[in-house]
Amino acid sequence: MGYTRLQVRIIRRRIEMATNMIAEILASGDEICSGAILDSNSAHIAQKLEKAGIKVVRHSCVGDDINTIAGILKEIGGRADIVVVTGGLGLTADDLTAEAAANAAGVELQTMLPKGAESLCNLVGTASGFFMKIGRCSAFFMPGVPSEMRRMLSDTVLPRIKKLQGNSRKFRQVKEISLFGLTESAISERITDLKVKFPEIKPGICVRFPEVHIKLYANGENKKNLNELLKNACKWVLKKIGKSAFSVDGDSMETVVGNLLRREKSTIAVAESCTGGLISHWLTNVPGSSYYFLFSGVTYSNKAKIKVLDVLPATLKRYGAVHEETAKEMAEGARRIAGATYGLSTTGIAGPSGGTTYKPVGTVCIGLATPYGTKSHRFNFAFDDRSMNKKIFAMTALDLLRRELLGNVDEIRNVDEIISGS
Amino acid sequence: MGYTRLQVRIIRRRIEMATNMIAEILASGDEICSGAILDSNSAHIAQKLEKAGIKVVRHSCVGDDINTIAGILKEIGGRADIVVVTGGLGLTADDLTAEAAANAAGVELQTMLPKGAESLCNLVGTASGFFMKIGRCSAFFMPGVPSEMRRMLSDTVLPRIKKLQGNSRKFRQVKEISLFGLTESAISERITDLKVKFPEIKPGICVRFPEVHIKLYANGENKKNLNELLKNACKWVLKKIGKSAFSVDGDSMETVVGNLLRREKSTIAVAESCTGGLISHWLTNVPGSSYYFLFSGVTYSNKAKIKVLDVLPATLKRYGAVHEETAKEMAEGARRIAGATYGLSTTGIAGPSGGTTYKPVGTVCIGLATPYGTKSHRFNFAFDDRSMNKKIFAMTALDLLRRELLGNVDEIRNVDEIISGS
Repeated sequence: MGYTRLQVRIIRRRIEMATNMIAEILASGDEICSGAILDSNSAHIAQKLEKAGIKVVRHSCVGDDINTIAGILKEIGGRADIVVVTGGLGLTADDLTAEAAANAAGVELQTMLPKGAESLCNLVGTASGFFMKIGRCSAFFMPGVPSEMRRMLSDTVLPRIKKLQGNSRKFRQVKEISLFGLTESAISERITDLKVKFPEIKPGICVRFPEVHIKLYANGENKKNLNELLKNACKWVLKKIGKSAFSVDGDSMETVVGNLLRREKSTIAVAESCTGGLISHWLTNVPGSSYYFLFSGVTYSNKAKIKVLDVLPATLKRYGAVHEETAKEMAEGARRIAGATYGLSTTGIAGPSGGTTYKPVGTVCIGLATPYGTKSHRFNFAFDDRSMNKKIFAMTALDLLRRELLGNVDEIRNVDEIISGS
Repeated sequence: MGYTRLQVRIIRRRIEMATNMIAEILASGDEICSGAILDSNSAHIAQKLEKAGIKVVRHSCVGDDINTIAGILKEIGGRADIVVVTGGLGLTADDLTAEAAANAAGVELQTMLPKGAESLCNLVGTASGFFMKIGRCSAFFMPGVPSEMRRMLSDTVLPRIKKLQGNSRKFRQVKEISLFGLTESAISERITDLKVKFPEIKPGICVRFPEVHIKLYANGENKKNLNELLKNACKWVLKKIGKSAFSVDGDSMETVVGNLLRREKSTIAVAESCTGGLISHWLTNVPGSSYYFLFSGVTYSNKAKIKVLDVLPATLKRYGAVHEETAKEMAEGARRIAGATYGLSTTGIAGPSGGTTYKPVGTVCIGLATPYGTKSHRFNFAFDDRSMNKKIFAMTALDLLRRELLGNVDEIRNVDEIISGS
């Protein structure tokens, strides 16, 4: 039945209020401000704070200028409960954060730290962090090196923040559904009723090409209730999007495929032309993949297709390298040579050149050899970007294998089955 | 000879002043603010603005809240000459930017745009951008979808910004040197005298693991003079860092290696164990790589090493899979099967498991078969991260091939030779 629009708005507002502390994130550094380095620290910190039930209302980034840093710290000190700062700690001339923080708080600098600041130890690097109050705001300063920052955040900063929250602690729980094969707008359309069915839940869709991720957020005091709510919302979403979902716990496609192969004690061999090694690179990113991944032949030249994969010269002559028949022989060849349960192949045109009227850039043929026979499919994608094509070709191939391993269910009987294959 | 510290500071200050307009960047969106999506737009915009001679002093990011967006736009309107905003354009409930901009400027919203705003057309998507003044600040609003934003930025926004600069236009030129094999601190030490030799140039070092990039920035009115200055500084830096530099024009390692192979009309075949296809993935990311890249055998299992690459079972039995001898046979096998000029191989332990006392995680053996014989090397890296190990193994292998193709110069006679191989 659901709720009216007004009720939804009231419920949303109540949930928003349930988040008790607000935080800001500040990154300092000329290289980040000028765009030379992508700031991945701020997104990482935001995720961890949100998970701890703290609302992140603003990120900022400024260059290595002492007055600018001091000015923005003073601003934030008057606005937020918590600020987490990265960068500018250390001993070089660009490391101005401690002095800027002292200026912002109107205290002296003593032995490299603002007066009254507490040092935060760095277990994996040389530059210590520190904690101090700026106005009413609790300010945590960490080094900008991602590995050092992450360690200090989890070991020292987050536990202290949890202490600051005390008994008034609220939780923010997240459930993430990973999909391949539906566009962002198609997903939006399918889950448009989520807000009336589950007004307590805030959805977010983010595209990490070629995957799409639906995130479901819930805020509140009772962790168990939140998780129950999220579980139900997740089931509802899965019914709407069906088999395109490949995981509900953040697992990558290659991890999901790997788990399915392990479950049935099967092995895989790959024959890649246009994906150029990307499928094997992804598969072997999973620790323990040597249990099921045996071999990939990246056969760019026709000679290698014939010599390594036993593709028949006649097939190449009759159909060309990019064809369903060639894809079939490649998949069968890889499977046979490696003695694997499955053989998976790609042959296509990633671009920018090599396209023809009949086989334009974005064409890919994918073969899948199984113990019960060999299938092959042709797809046409509309990207004129070599790197995007490689990714979507490789992901499509892995998704075909995933669906094969799930028993290629055409009708959704049980949503849990789609995800876990159990 | 150089300059004194005081002179350096004065020159730096003068250059800083030469940059005439200051800009800020604002990203809006709950998914960015909560860290679910990494904001790559802001870094891209910053790079382009800096290149146009405009100093970026601050980036900010806020969630989809109309009051917050309006508030920060008003702030920026009072501070900056230019603001470039991304996100929140379109027709859904979260798309609040136009209304927020109208609030900030104190104007009405008319047919979806703030009164007086000019629409900026979107050639690759549905949501138009717009331009308006907020206070004294020229504000450009663009969609958050990276491909749409990039197109609108280059086609519409940057040309308008150049017009705003008028005759007072300053330039900011950059030279980028890409390195592999030296740490950030080793580089800092070697180029520490840069600031006294070339006080007009501001250096920046950024790590994109496993590469390191030295950026040299110069600001001023005469583009030709700036480029001459940067060229001299670049030569100076190259003398200090030597063969570790692999490009001075932003080319990737795989592009450099590809160009060297093309120049001598050579071909390459690869045999990968621990790198799992990453070397071939990188090599085939380069358009036109099919001219020189013939084949890669990703031989995870010993069986595949024997069957596909003709590695002798006796070698595997005597030395094990991770050994210089095995690496040699793998490289020779790949070279022979594909009929390639060079064969390159990797076999090692990427982790997290599989390490022993004698062959700990991070051990890799790399083989290089050439028309004049086969070499192999063993390296030990100290990372306990599978993905980092795969990257540094693959990059080390490509770097060995690069040095071979350059004639393996041991002494630096001519810095140009190191880079271009000419």
